[in-house]
Amino acid sequence: MGIDNLMILVVLLSLFCLISSSVLAQQQQNQKLRFDENGEFKILQVADMHYANGKTTLCLDVLPSQKAYCTDLNTTAFIQRMIIAEKPNLIVFTGDNIFGFDSFDSAKSMNAAFAPAIASNIPWVAVLGNHDQEGSLSREGVMKHIVGMKNTLSKLNPPEIHIIDGFGNYNLEVGGVEGTDFENKSVLNLYFLDSGDYSKVLPIPGYDWIKPSQQFWFQRTSAKLQRAYKKGPAPQKEPAPGLAYFHIPLPEYASFDSSNFTGVKQEGNGSDGISSASVNSGFFTTLVGAGDVKAVFTGHDHINDFCGKLTGINLCYAGGFGYHAYGKAGWSRRARVMVASLEKTVKGSWGNVKSIKTWKRLDDQHLTGIDGEVLWSKNSGA
Amino acid sequence: MGIDNLMILVVLLSLFCLISSSVLAQQQQNQKLRFDENGEFKILQVADMHYANGKTTLCLDVLPSQKAYCTDLNTTAFIQRMIIAEKPNLIVFTGDNIFGFDSFDSAKSMNAAFAPAIASNIPWVAVLGNHDQEGSLSREGVMKHIVGMKNTLSKLNPPEIHIIDGFGNYNLEVGGVEGTDFENKSVLNLYFLDSGDYSKVLPIPGYDWIKPSQQFWFQRTSAKLQRAYKKGPAPQKEPAPGLAYFHIPLPEYASFDSSNFTGVKQEGNGSDGISSASVNSGFFTTLVGAGDVKAVFTGHDHINDFCGKLTGINLCYAGGFGYHAYGKAGWSRRARVMVASLEKTVKGSWGNVKSIKTWKRLDDQHLTGIDGEVLWSKNSGA
Repeated sequence: MGIDNLMILVVLLSLFCLISSSVLAQQQQNQKLRFDENGEFKILQVADMHYANGKTTLCLDVLPSQKAYCTDLNTTAFIQRMIIAEKPNLIVFTGDNIFGFDSFDSAKSMNAAFAPAIASNIPWVAVLGNHDQEGSLSREGVMKHIVGMKNTLSKLNPPEIHIIDGFGNYNLEVGGVEGTDFENKSVLNLYFLDSGDYSKVLPIPGYDWIKPSQQFWFQRTSAKLQRAYKKGPAPQKEPAPGLAYFHIPLPEYASFDSSNFTGVKQEGNGSDGISSASVNSGFFTTLVGAGDVKAVFTGHDHINDFCGKLTGINLCYAGGFGYHAYGKAGWSRRARVMVASLEKTVKGSWGNVKSIKTWKRLDDQHLTGIDGEVLWSKNSGA
Repeated sequence: MGIDNLMILVVLLSLFCLISSSVLAQQQQNQKLRFDENGEFKILQVADMHYANGKTTLCLDVLPSQKAYCTDLNTTAFIQRMIIAEKPNLIVFTGDNIFGFDSFDSAKSMNAAFAPAIASNIPWVAVLGNHDQEGSLSREGVMKHIVGMKNTLSKLNPPEIHIIDGFGNYNLEVGGVEGTDFENKSVLNLYFLDSGDYSKVLPIPGYDWIKPSQQFWFQRTSAKLQRAYKKGPAPQKEPAPGLAYFHIPLPEYASFDSSNFTGVKQEGNGSDGISSASVNSGFFTTLVGAGDVKAVFTGHDHINDFCGKLTGINLCYAGGFGYHAYGKAGWSRRARVMVASLEKTVKGSWGNVKSIKTWKRLDDQHLTGIDGEVLWSKNSGA
């Protein structure tokens, strides 16, 4: 084969690869999440990676013994280990995925930060935190970059509403087990929202909040999903449980103390150890009103990692994951896992969601699991 | 003239009267509110009339000496006296206009309750409280009846949004003085909202709240008005001030005590003397975010009558007006007045709003005015 023919072959092969990967990416974008044959659906939540430039970006708040060799690559290694250990069905990055101030190139930082998720071939999604836009890309630019990445199910915004605040407000449906009555029903609903960065309203200091446009979208989406769930096939009386993921905790996270939460609260920020917005924008009320969401998962406060239950809704932190993020030396970086389990129907096949459990894993030698708890179970009601 | 001809004349005259009054009503419905030639626009707020059946409906919580002769007609007389004393440009009824439980016929109760306003030929509007629907009409029925009454500028709901919670969410524009640069600009914006009745959400007890759909509508309306105000003719840098009227106070009304409000707080209901919803639905945050509303006027708590200022927004009660409503014997029924005043332009004509003042009047022999204060003035900013 002459050089020319070889070149043509290489070009054709490259083109084929490009098209295949594009088709594959398209398939993956449209891929329907569903419960596996064991009747489980598991989500790994990664909060606050604060990724910058990889091996040249040093760790914050680690023990003196760790300092010399600790970089962003420790964050990468932790994701890889978590994926292998948990084999989740979905990975959710809840914002401050990159730390824009220290990043030379936001796109490159994201490519490196999400690389382990992409390499795993597990679907993944991300929402924005308050630091993601501090580099070379705007919030819109960051979210657009994410949406274009491989294996992600992230979306820029809902297509049906063109006036919505923020970037990265979307929902995903998780279907029942293939071949059962629930295969075409969403038995678990995932809501992702952009909780913003900083207040743009002069008299209000501090962090941003979830706006009426976003709440209105959430409310309508929840109502639509509930209507569908209550129709045939296999019409249900109760709504399918929902989970909401975003970055900044709600003011209601301040409702708990060690007597009624599982985990720790050790943030110094804010008067009550919670760095929510300084005002209440009502999203907790909207969540309670919608009636389907059983748990909210946020990040933002790296050294809070608790779950507490208020008016039937679990408010959970994941705890800080990333090494180039403030933390507490000697207090391991960690990740939160959620698993939803289906019940068996009278016919012996998989039905709808029976329980929602959670635990965390620490980035230590054994990825120690801690704080396992049942967040919701069908039989005990809310 | 024969009997037949007389009958025809009567029918024709009746028809003419009907058409004339219909055209007049139509004109009044479309009438544009505007500042008068003295550069003022005055609103009389009537909170919690609790009207039932007129002269057979007795008063609550009055002095023993008043009891024998006190009925709904005392409420009627108080409105008449207030209208004569203040000659307002608009009368706003902020809910619990009728007390449905005791009313034999909701429509008749409303006809009697609003009769003094109608007779005055002054434009008037109403919103719903939590008791209006307890009689023979639903909330929708009550609001539809109101919208069909004479001289009212009340509306059922905004035409552009067909999915909005409640009935009686609308806004009114108040134009500048005729013949000035501001004659076709809304220099004062009035927002009216349905704050609901009781929570429909099982785990949340107590009163209802303003929903995301209503907040979204408010936010978009405010933004649209602000854009128009900043355009020519006479383009303005700051938004025109806005006022919001509804029934149930916001949770933020609990932020004040006698050290930082004008008036009194003496309700026993609620842990902090405020009968707001038990949850925060974020409307205060939405109001602050919009940036134009300078004062909120509610009723609901009959024996609270204060105004307090939080993050640039005055939160005001009117104090109870109606005699068939709980109150405090010896503590006069009262009404709140708001007057907005225009500034003079360099050319010597009337410009935009310079100040917003308020006071209350007591239903005593002299309609004593109390608690006069400046809520907002242009030069001092927020």
